[in-house]
Order: sequence, then C-alpha cells, then structure tokens
Amino acid sequence: MITIRDVARQAGVSVATVSRVLNNSSAVTAETRDAVLQAVEGLGYRPNANAQALATQVSDTIGVVVMDVSDPFFGALVKAVDAVAQRVQKHVLISNSWHQEEKERHAIEVLMRQRCNALVVHAKSLSDAELGGFMDQVPGMVLVNRILPGYAHRCVGLDNVTGALMATRMLLQQGHTRIGYLGSSHAIEDDERRRAGWLMALQEQGIAPPEVWVGCGEPDMQGGEAAMVELLGRNLQLSAIFAYNDGMAAGALTALKDNGIAVPHHFSVIGFDDIPMSRYTDPQLTTVRYPIVSMAKLATELALKGAAGELDSNARHCFMPTLVRRHSVAARQNVAPITFSSDSSM
Amino acid sequence: MITIRDVARQAGVSVATVSRVLNNSSAVTAETRDAVLQAVEGLGYRPNANAQALATQVSDTIGVVVMDVSDPFFGALVKAVDAVAQRVQKHVLISNSWHQEEKERHAIEVLMRQRCNALVVHAKSLSDAELGGFMDQVPGMVLVNRILPGYAHRCVGLDNVTGALMATRMLLQQGHTRIGYLGSSHAIEDDERRRAGWLMALQEQGIAPPEVWVGCGEPDMQGGEAAMVELLGRNLQLSAIFAYNDGMAAGALTALKDNGIAVPHHFSVIGFDDIPMSRYTDPQLTTVRYPIVSMAKLATELALKGAAGELDSNARHCFMPTLVRRHSVAARQNVAPITFSSDSSM
Repeated sequence: MITIRDVARQAGVSVATVSRVLNNSSAVTAETRDAVLQAVEGLGYRPNANAQALATQVSDTIGVVVMDVSDPFFGALVKAVDAVAQRVQKHVLISNSWHQEEKERHAIEVLMRQRCNALVVHAKSLSDAELGGFMDQVPGMVLVNRILPGYAHRCVGLDNVTGALMATRMLLQQGHTRIGYLGSSHAIEDDERRRAGWLMALQEQGIAPPEVWVGCGEPDMQGGEAAMVELLGRNLQLSAIFAYNDGMAAGALTALKDNGIAVPHHFSVIGFDDIPMSRYTDPQLTTVRYPIVSMAKLATELALKGAAGELDSNARHCFMPTLVRRHSVAARQNVAPITFSSDSSM
Repeated sequence: MITIRDVARQAGVSVATVSRVLNNSSAVTAETRDAVLQAVEGLGYRPNANAQALATQVSDTIGVVVMDVSDPFFGALVKAVDAVAQRVQKHVLISNSWHQEEKERHAIEVLMRQRCNALVVHAKSLSDAELGGFMDQVPGMVLVNRILPGYAHRCVGLDNVTGALMATRMLLQQGHTRIGYLGSSHAIEDDERRRAGWLMALQEQGIAPPEVWVGCGEPDMQGGEAAMVELLGRNLQLSAIFAYNDGMAAGALTALKDNGIAVPHHFSVIGFDDIPMSRYTDPQLTTVRYPIVSMAKLATELALKGAAGELDSNARHCFMPTLVRRHSVAARQNVAPITFSSDSSM
C-alpha cells in the first residue's frame, strides 16, 4: 500500500510538507504543492481517513443505525438521510442493530469510533441511561422514533398511540366491533403503543377485547401471514384487523385470500407506516401514514446542527400520523355503523 | 472527549502503557493492567478506531457497497453479508452508490479509507480499469454481480442471459408469441443481458420483436406500473411480458388490474430476482430466482479469505438462475403451444 512516505520521497519533500499540502493547513510554495500533488496522482496515494480523522477529531461521514436495512421502513429512513447527506457532500455509513441491546450498543460504538460527528440512530433496546451517555459524548447524535427524557430537542418522534386510535376508530365507524390486532413479536415500544391505541379505541365503545384477539409474528409479510392464519384458526368471528405495520397487513391479505375471505367485502384490514408497497397490494392497503422520510430528513439536519453546536434546546419534534384511505376497509355487512360522540370522531 | 492521556493520568502510568494494555501487545503486570482498565471504565474512555486502524492498518469492519439499500434485492444482499459478519464477529458498514460512477468511486474510497480490509462491492458503473485498480489495492475486495477480467476468482456472478432465456421460453411454451419486455431505465449491464436473453428466445422461434415491445422505467414497482401503462397505451396486442425485476413485475400487475386485464387468464407476467415480496403479489409472481443470499454469503467469505491472503486464484463463481413457477403465467387462450425442438426445451 502506498504511504505518505512514498509520496514524500517521490516529491523530494518531508512527510510533514506532504501532510500540510493535503490538509491545506499551512503556507507552502506553489511549486512544492504541485510537486506533492503530482506525486500523489502518480502513485495513486489515498489519504488515510483514520489519520485525517485523528488530526481533526471528526470525519466527513454521517452514521446511521437502524434495525434492519432490508425492512422497507428502515430502507426509506436511510434513503432520506442519504438525500440530506448528498446535499451537504457528506458520506453515509449505515450499521444494522437487529433490535438487540448489544448490537445497538455495538453499532453506535463502531460509528463513534469512526469519529462520525453526526449520528442518526433508531435504537429501541438500549436503556435511557445508556443512550443518554452516548448523547452526552456525541453532540451530533439524534434519535428517531424515541423521545429520550432530557434530550427531547435531539429526538424526532411520532405519536404511535394516536395513529393506532385513528385506525381502530375508523374500523369501528365502519360497524366493526370484533377487531383483532396483529402485533410484532419484537419487544419494542412501538408495538406496545400501537396495541394501547387499539385497546383504547375499543374501550371507548365499551368493548373489552380478550387476549386471543391478538396475534403475533415477525414484523414482515411472512410474520403477518402466519399471525393471520393463527387468528383465523381460533375461529373468533373477527370482521377486521389492525396490523402493527404494512408488511404484516400485506401478509394478512394473502392469508385471507388463501382462505377465500374477500377483502374488504367480508373482512377489513388496516396497516401502519404507508411504505411504498402498500399501494401495490390487492386491494390497495388502507393504512396510517408514518412520515418517516420527513422525520429522517429532519433528524439528519438536527444531527448536523448538533455537530456544529447550533441546536435549539427548546425545540420539540413530535410528528402526527395521518390516515390513508385506500381499498382494504369497508363497512361491516348488515350492521349499522356505531354512532360516535363528536369528540371521538375523526 | 476523554483521551488516552486522561486514562494514563488517572491510572498513573504512561500513554504507551495504556496503549499496550488496550492492544494486548506487550507484557504488563496484572496490577498495571487492572489500574488501566479501571481508569478506562471509570472515565468511559473509548479507544479510537482510527488510531487502532492506523496502528494495525486494518479495521474490524466489512464494507459493503450497493446501489440502494432500500431496494429489496440489495437489502437481501446486505442482510446476507451481515449474517456472515456476525459469525466472525465483524461489523458491517454499508454505503450506497446509486448506480452512479462518481458515487461508486466515492463509496469504495470511503470504506477503503476506513481501512476495511474486506469489501463486498456491487458496482456497475465504474470501468474495468478503475475497478481493477481498487482490486489491486485491496486484496479483500470482492465483486458481486460482475465478472472483472483478470479478477474472476474474486467475482461472484450470475448468468443473466440464461435467466432471461428461461423466462421467455416459458412464456413461448405457453403459447405466447407477442411478449413484451419491461426494462430498467438505469444503464446497467444486467438490463442489457436480460433484454438479450429475451430477444434470443424470441428469435429462436423466428419472432423479431419491434422496439415498441420494450417499455422502460425505474427498476421498482412505480417504474413497472408506469412502463406497463405505456405499453398498454401502444395497443400492441401483447399477451405477456417479461420484467427486468420483481418490483417492476408487481407494478405491472397493478396496472393490468386497474385496466381490467386478468392475470394470468388474459395476460401473463414473469419477473426476475424472487424477492420475498413476490410471494405476496396477487397472483403470486412467477419469476426467475436470483440466488442473491447465497451469492452475497460466498462473496463475504471470499472477501475475508482475500484479506487473509488465502484465495484460490483458479476458482470461478458463476451462479445459475432457476425458474420459480407460481401463478402469474398461464397458457395463451385459444392458441396451441409452440412445439420446441429438444435442445431448446427446459
């Protein structure tokens, strides 16, 4: 591998001079500069980012930690971070955390050790205390989808409970009363919140759903398919489900179709997230929009500001979900819609 | 930020001693080691990966360059690399290249400058010469989906032409003769190869498809939908299409449904890749399987071997696609299937 010493030898100058030229950090004559740059070009020398980062204590990369880039939700998040990074001519390095405490810690540490001074992190397993420790060490670290007490101005969150309330109320308004929940088998806060919103909406109508109305699976199509099959097997006379995310909802559509149950005529399905795929299911999926692209862009901008010490500590960044009405929800057959009191209507 | 000097001061030893303890590189007394580790723990010191990488000239990370992690095909690739990395306790850093020459170069350089000694790279825009230059500098760099002359033992490829031949012959065997191609608007070799296979299969049957039988779009659902709408608008009396990938095929299914054309009864669709989603379209997508998980795993293993100087320079790694028969292809109505000569049958 070509080193800075080879460049110095070739250019007939000292290593320190080569370094000065490469870092634009001190006056060198135009002649020397040319000689050095010619040697760099001729030898194909690549300055070592590690050495440069050591010298300046920062790198030109924005780090991103997500659960799994192959999940469409996180794919959209990463793509949004990348869009901002390209605008400011930074690179993005991505690391997966698999929703596991140890891997989340590891992913953050790897990026910190690369001296990324801006970090956009989706971490749901680490404790508040440990995350707080990382936040203290990296002023340019921002959390997506988690509000950390004491660091709210560096967190971009979504009101999951309200999203789930909106989805379930929509089904109730269509006359459904036996509404199941397809939950994620990952132990994460989002699932708890969405389940809480579903429960709250049912309770508003005096419905106390038994535990068996909840099916669980991996938060993807396969998991949703399996969970829906499980719920169907329990013979609960459900007429609708609210799914943890669109992947699970899409899997549920397949399970329903395979069992000859027409959606939305005989069964209604509503998802969460509004990933691009939800426009391409059959029928097109009615869902709750998670504005992840806007949120990830804002998080990236906050991270860059944080790295530059320009954050407003009074700002708060909590987004609201919205309903996207497509074709997987219809009125329950032969049942009059429930009348809502004005305060609980959408 | 806590530095190694703070640790040395706290432990009452020299910086060199701290370094020796942290790198397990020289004999120190148990007492000194304990004092240093206690200081590290107490101060929350994190060894700087850049400094460590400088000292050893390698990092413990595997770098991955893909076009776009939010594309399900590349998501599967990254996930497979991560699986191997976890087995050998390495981290994975991912960088997007967007199929653009400059960004591919940039992504590789960023990971090289991080001193990743193993790189799994999907690069379709850089010239053979430039990629060869990178391969020379990083013995642990391996290419996926491209065979670079002179470096074949460090390349993992797929026979795209044969895959496209198989797909198109299947449609021909079902009696289709007017078969369109939904191509990618990205100027990449894969699209040329798949189009060439489609053309070859048609020509085997004496069919010379006019240029208008080809529709182009972004290689995703939205692009496929738009390209299919465009083809339908040309009123070509096609009865089937072969799509560049499953995303485009899924978009085509939506366009066909929106236009009241039943798949597979009145129109057949075949995709490429067999991404997880293709089991969840309606109807389930018949497709050509791209064994990307196996290929990415092999590429990662080769990259690790390359970094360790253990590669077999005579090995070749070209995978074959296989047909996955689901429900989006059926016999063309009222038309007898074409008879194949034995050598062109599957």
